[in-house]
Amino acid sequence: MFEVAELGHKVTKADYNEKVPTLRTQLLTAQQQLSTLNFSVIILISGVDGGGKGEVINLLNEWLDPRFMRTNAYDSSSDEEKERPKFWRFWRTMPAKGTIGIYVGSWYSNPIAQRVHKDTKEADLQLQLTQIKQLEQELADDGTLIIKCWLHLKKDPQKKRLKLLENNPETAWQVTNRDKKHLKMYDDFARVAETVLKETSSTQNPWRIIDGSDIRYSSLTVGQRVLDKIKAHIAAHELKQSMPVPTRSAPIIHGNQPKILDSLDLSLELDKKDYNEKLNFYQGKLNKLARYAHQKKTSRVLVFEGWDAGGKGGAIRRLTRALDSRNYQVIPIAAPTDEEQVQHYLWRFWRHMSRAGRITIYDRSWYGRVLVERVEGFASEQEWTRAYSEITNFEKSLTDHGIVLLKFWLHIDPDEQLRRFKGREKISYKQHKITEEDYRNRDKWAEYSLAVNDMVAHTNSQKTSWTLVEANNKRYARIKVIKTYCEALEKALD
Amino acid sequence: MFEVAELGHKVTKADYNEKVPTLRTQLLTAQQQLSTLNFSVIILISGVDGGGKGEVINLLNEWLDPRFMRTNAYDSSSDEEKERPKFWRFWRTMPAKGTIGIYVGSWYSNPIAQRVHKDTKEADLQLQLTQIKQLEQELADDGTLIIKCWLHLKKDPQKKRLKLLENNPETAWQVTNRDKKHLKMYDDFARVAETVLKETSSTQNPWRIIDGSDIRYSSLTVGQRVLDKIKAHIAAHELKQSMPVPTRSAPIIHGNQPKILDSLDLSLELDKKDYNEKLNFYQGKLNKLARYAHQKKTSRVLVFEGWDAGGKGGAIRRLTRALDSRNYQVIPIAAPTDEEQVQHYLWRFWRHMSRAGRITIYDRSWYGRVLVERVEGFASEQEWTRAYSEITNFEKSLTDHGIVLLKFWLHIDPDEQLRRFKGREKISYKQHKITEEDYRNRDKWAEYSLAVNDMVAHTNSQKTSWTLVEANNKRYARIKVIKTYCEALEKALD
Repeated sequence: MFEVAELGHKVTKADYNEKVPTLRTQLLTAQQQLSTLNFSVIILISGVDGGGKGEVINLLNEWLDPRFMRTNAYDSSSDEEKERPKFWRFWRTMPAKGTIGIYVGSWYSNPIAQRVHKDTKEADLQLQLTQIKQLEQELADDGTLIIKCWLHLKKDPQKKRLKLLENNPETAWQVTNRDKKHLKMYDDFARVAETVLKETSSTQNPWRIIDGSDIRYSSLTVGQRVLDKIKAHIAAHELKQSMPVPTRSAPIIHGNQPKILDSLDLSLELDKKDYNEKLNFYQGKLNKLARYAHQKKTSRVLVFEGWDAGGKGGAIRRLTRALDSRNYQVIPIAAPTDEEQVQHYLWRFWRHMSRAGRITIYDRSWYGRVLVERVEGFASEQEWTRAYSEITNFEKSLTDHGIVLLKFWLHIDPDEQLRRFKGREKISYKQHKITEEDYRNRDKWAEYSLAVNDMVAHTNSQKTSWTLVEANNKRYARIKVIKTYCEALEKALD
Repeated sequence: MFEVAELGHKVTKADYNEKVPTLRTQLLTAQQQLSTLNFSVIILISGVDGGGKGEVINLLNEWLDPRFMRTNAYDSSSDEEKERPKFWRFWRTMPAKGTIGIYVGSWYSNPIAQRVHKDTKEADLQLQLTQIKQLEQELADDGTLIIKCWLHLKKDPQKKRLKLLENNPETAWQVTNRDKKHLKMYDDFARVAETVLKETSSTQNPWRIIDGSDIRYSSLTVGQRVLDKIKAHIAAHELKQSMPVPTRSAPIIHGNQPKILDSLDLSLELDKKDYNEKLNFYQGKLNKLARYAHQKKTSRVLVFEGWDAGGKGGAIRRLTRALDSRNYQVIPIAAPTDEEQVQHYLWRFWRHMSRAGRITIYDRSWYGRVLVERVEGFASEQEWTRAYSEITNFEKSLTDHGIVLLKFWLHIDPDEQLRRFKGREKISYKQHKITEEDYRNRDKWAEYSLAVNDMVAHTNSQKTSWTLVEANNKRYARIKVIKTYCEALEKALD
């Protein structure tokens, strides 16, 4: 597949100097337009050593307007990066909508290098590529334009290029021992690269292989490709905006569909004495487990979802009382900030990813996408339906990293909710928790029920299972939460 | 000074249970109010081991509304933290305006521990305390309320408390070897703590020493203090808001004041041949120096300020062409995002602080505070006048960390600026750089000149000196920039 890039394309200096000003103008114009639109652009410049990646990236940096662009270099991971799921370092530097991120190194670097050095098996590589495809698909679904360029060089010219660089004292630094080692592994490298490029070229996110033997040719070609892709993406984006929005069909409530929530026995309760004893017992137990988990550097993520007034806050406080305040964070999810709004909706959860051995407790979570955003129409049907797999992938990246994930749905019935609303209005320090909107949401109980049933059905797996909590009785619910958590943690730490 | 906290204050359970609900309500009400105001609250809970810091913080976490509050724990530094100036870890987690940050550990932890363990001398401690006082003063100047509580315990009760904790298998974990070691050092610890508390208690940011022998007493006292302080701060804040804004007096232009800028010879120039030779030479040199600095993990910060069309972008590109795109970032400073707007104005620069061995190039910078914000009246006179020392402290924290800092002012005269504006309008890819505002700013040339003169006069020191660049001739300016940078870097790396 590399043959097309081995023809020895060349651009003369005169030709280059003539073409560059026009290209720059067009790139800047496209960037101006892009800056007002709600998608981002990721440019990956990869390829063989000596293929001119550095030069091309430096030129892109010169040509583009730095106000709407940033270069992200991914060298070896810092310890903060190692303590988090592997894609975290990419999420933390994701370009905002309206801007361009140029990637020096990317999610492809490690999988290729590891396979070339035989640190991984072919099956590992395949798994990594699957994860990469998922990531790119999710970004593309969010509107992101991913431009992937591979700078190719034949074996002999690579050798020559490295020699040339090495012999010139001004450029010798560019040749590292790793490069020389890679040169010896050229054939292995080419073979692995071919697999990777083939596997990860899709219609939406294709690789473009570019002859890297002449810097003028390769930089002009990359620049032109960046321009063409951005222009085409803007055009497609505008076309989509001008299309009539399909009228939202009312969600269908299947009366006789198996309802997961209906199977819960809401009459379950605990008396005060029993509750106090059990609470004491499990708080002590949790405390010990949490310390052990901290020592073992096992992170934990807890998700609390449930009806308004379902008792999330109370259940969370019964947990945190047993925890060391140095090691946990409660993240209440409210409206996104503007920096969050110009990112993929999962970005705001990635940014709260804790260092190793900590606990992050979400009071509401990414499930807002398939609950409130679905029911209230903030997310399109396309968006919330694909969110199930996005969420599944996201949670898998947590559990793959060794994070223990627990998810609770606190379930009450409408009568109990009304009782609690009325009760809250009487307790001065809880009044702020009750608004008009809470009452309005009650009218949509059936729609929310359907959304919850779908959510549980689509996002339940062994390592990411939902715990449905019968929460009409607060004491019962709190004990069920802390007990479930203790047992899961105990099992996970075993 | 600790005697007042050694009286053995106690609160009965009944009394406690009666007082807590009222306190909680009032805290939540105060938080609601705070959430709409533009200042933040920092709560530092420090004190002796076994003084109940953990318990008090856990209770505050329970009482406060998690939507407007976050607990930040500062344990040992990560490598990413170690690679940056020491206060970076506090800046990265600074609470936003309208919210509360509870600090477990703080900028006091290391200075106290190091002195107790005799890792530092008294003079080091004094220097650290000076830096802490500066930090707290700057935060307070920005409106931040800092509430500092010290939980005290006499030697015997501390011993008893630790024994008690240790003997109970449920709580033994809370007693670390460090605690036991500390216990042996009680007297040293008390002595150092006394110095620190005395030195860092100001009218604005006083320490409150609280008897830690009874958890009910200490948590109620801390809670009440937090409430009182927030209420008083809100009242003071509102009083200030209601005061008439002093009419801004027109800045005085001292015609015969020594003008630093006027001493520059703007006729300096370079011919093309000379320029190309020198550029080649210095780019090669810079490249080598930059690699060496990267190896040595020396970070570099470059600040570019100058008149509109002064040639900042062009000078920056001549530098970056010699750099490895993996190791530098160009940060163009534009309007702050909303997350930046709810922070101290220096926060947005702290957030771009690079890891070790990198180069951060600012195209405009924190000097906006004393230039555009001063001239356009976006910052009050009080704000921009105190900014000189804030900036000096900020830059000192960079150079103290070993960062090589260079600052360039690109100076042109009004005629040259006009020529460049007209020229830009003719080059298609530069048209976007010229707006109405650029022309409007020309009317304020004298005011800006004064601001620049003041800026240079107030923020020039040996390690943070300004380089004034005669920039009417672009070639001359670019060579002066890269040459100055090479020489400074060479000297610094020596």
